[in-house]
Amino acid sequence: MTNQTIEAMLNRKSIRKYTDEQPSDEVIHAVVRAGQQAPFAAQLGSVLMKRSTGGKKLPFGAPVLFTICVDSHRLELVMARRGWKMVTCDLSILIFGMQDAAYMAENMVMAAESFGMGSCFLGGAPYQADKIAEEYSLPPRVFPMVQLSMGYPAEDPPPRPRYPLDLTLFEDCYREFSDDDVSRAMEVMDEGYLSQEYYRRAGYMIPLEDDRKETHSYETYGWTEHISRKWGQWLRSPTDLLEKLALCGFPMNEDDEA
Amino acid sequence: MTNQTIEAMLNRKSIRKYTDEQPSDEVIHAVVRAGQQAPFAAQLGSVLMKRSTGGKKLPFGAPVLFTICVDSHRLELVMARRGWKMVTCDLSILIFGMQDAAYMAENMVMAAESFGMGSCFLGGAPYQADKIAEEYSLPPRVFPMVQLSMGYPAEDPPPRPRYPLDLTLFEDCYREFSDDDVSRAMEVMDEGYLSQEYYRRAGYMIPLEDDRKETHSYETYGWTEHISRKWGQWLRSPTDLLEKLALCGFPMNEDDEA
Repeated sequence: MTNQTIEAMLNRKSIRKYTDEQPSDEVIHAVVRAGQQAPFAAQLGSVLMKRSTGGKKLPFGAPVLFTICVDSHRLELVMARRGWKMVTCDLSILIFGMQDAAYMAENMVMAAESFGMGSCFLGGAPYQADKIAEEYSLPPRVFPMVQLSMGYPAEDPPPRPRYPLDLTLFEDCYREFSDDDVSRAMEVMDEGYLSQEYYRRAGYMIPLEDDRKETHSYETYGWTEHISRKWGQWLRSPTDLLEKLALCGFPMNEDDEA
Repeated sequence: MTNQTIEAMLNRKSIRKYTDEQPSDEVIHAVVRAGQQAPFAAQLGSVLMKRSTGGKKLPFGAPVLFTICVDSHRLELVMARRGWKMVTCDLSILIFGMQDAAYMAENMVMAAESFGMGSCFLGGAPYQADKIAEEYSLPPRVFPMVQLSMGYPAEDPPPRPRYPLDLTLFEDCYREFSDDDVSRAMEVMDEGYLSQEYYRRAGYMIPLEDDRKETHSYETYGWTEHISRKWGQWLRSPTDLLEKLALCGFPMNEDDEA
């Protein structure tokens, strides 16, 4: 069972090299407008945008960089006009607002593909929220969730592997993963990335911390080792992230009895 | 600037009435497979599924209900096999995992449209995480983020209004909203929902709490009043949500010095 939409989704891959061509305002507007129409409840997503015009250097040399934010500020202005004050706790705002923003962002990804453009998410925005807030003069109650570079592709990599479907979709009951299931998940990811020479081409292996000795080379360093080094070494403490949230007006420390 | 993809996104609306027709396994698999291929980093999304077969009653009478989860469990099994232990704090897992799950979910929404199906998100899953965890026998470290009903539509509502594009997309600098901007945002939303008789047809206005007197009727109750009553009355305390997260193995109370 397939069709054009499914094929577009299956063939989509992140693009990290772009031509110099600037997407027209019309194309950009169509992409973001299609993003806005994504479902969910409260339109808590806002989109900041920067172009590489005027010599600005953007990630991956892309002509356009979007920063997609959880935006409670605009809603609070609307609520004030109706005589209401936001009382929902910050954690719930994040849970709902990140979804609003993410559904919009993914529509933008596929909308870009439909115009022959490519894109790549940059996940570091929450950890650089202070710099982004300054750069775009964000008011309090706007939190940068993710960035998305976009433009016309100057590379054509293959789509990247994913876990087997039966290890992601579970009918009626979550799967009790067997040793064999875990092996299958790892094989498809590692053999897929190794056969695409993903990390060798990128020239990047995540360094080992705490004096661990390197035992991998580009012959053996696959997706599961890469991802393990991230989640096994990085972002141990929430302190920095909580500070960034507080700085953006989401102190996350609501009184339970509020 | 438009094309088939953009039109599909602009014409998409949530569907709350479905025919009895069961989508085939092939269609479901294509939808979830297209979801899996969504970009981001760590494949932290998993999809639970239930069919209405055997007399199960699902929300909106839909034939299929998905529950899209942030799944750290599967990644931790993979990491363990490589000799790694998850150290990333729960807040960061949520920030990244919700994005993985949401990008997947939005691909599923548009993939469903491409097969002539409709869908509707149900945002309450995090607040019912305990019941969902029991229903699907979730292991610890899997958190239900959102539910998505899906099937062939038995209604054809119009697409719903959205804020004007210039109040969502900001180039170089966040917009300082003028009084007129706020009025424009409210007008397009309220006049749009009122002209579609959205709340009258749904037969639903959110009740006022704290002895506030009702001053609205279906003649005047629009989107901004509706949304204000949610965010101005609901989910004041994060306690319940934090309990649900803890129950699912995300205690969110990491020691800062860990």
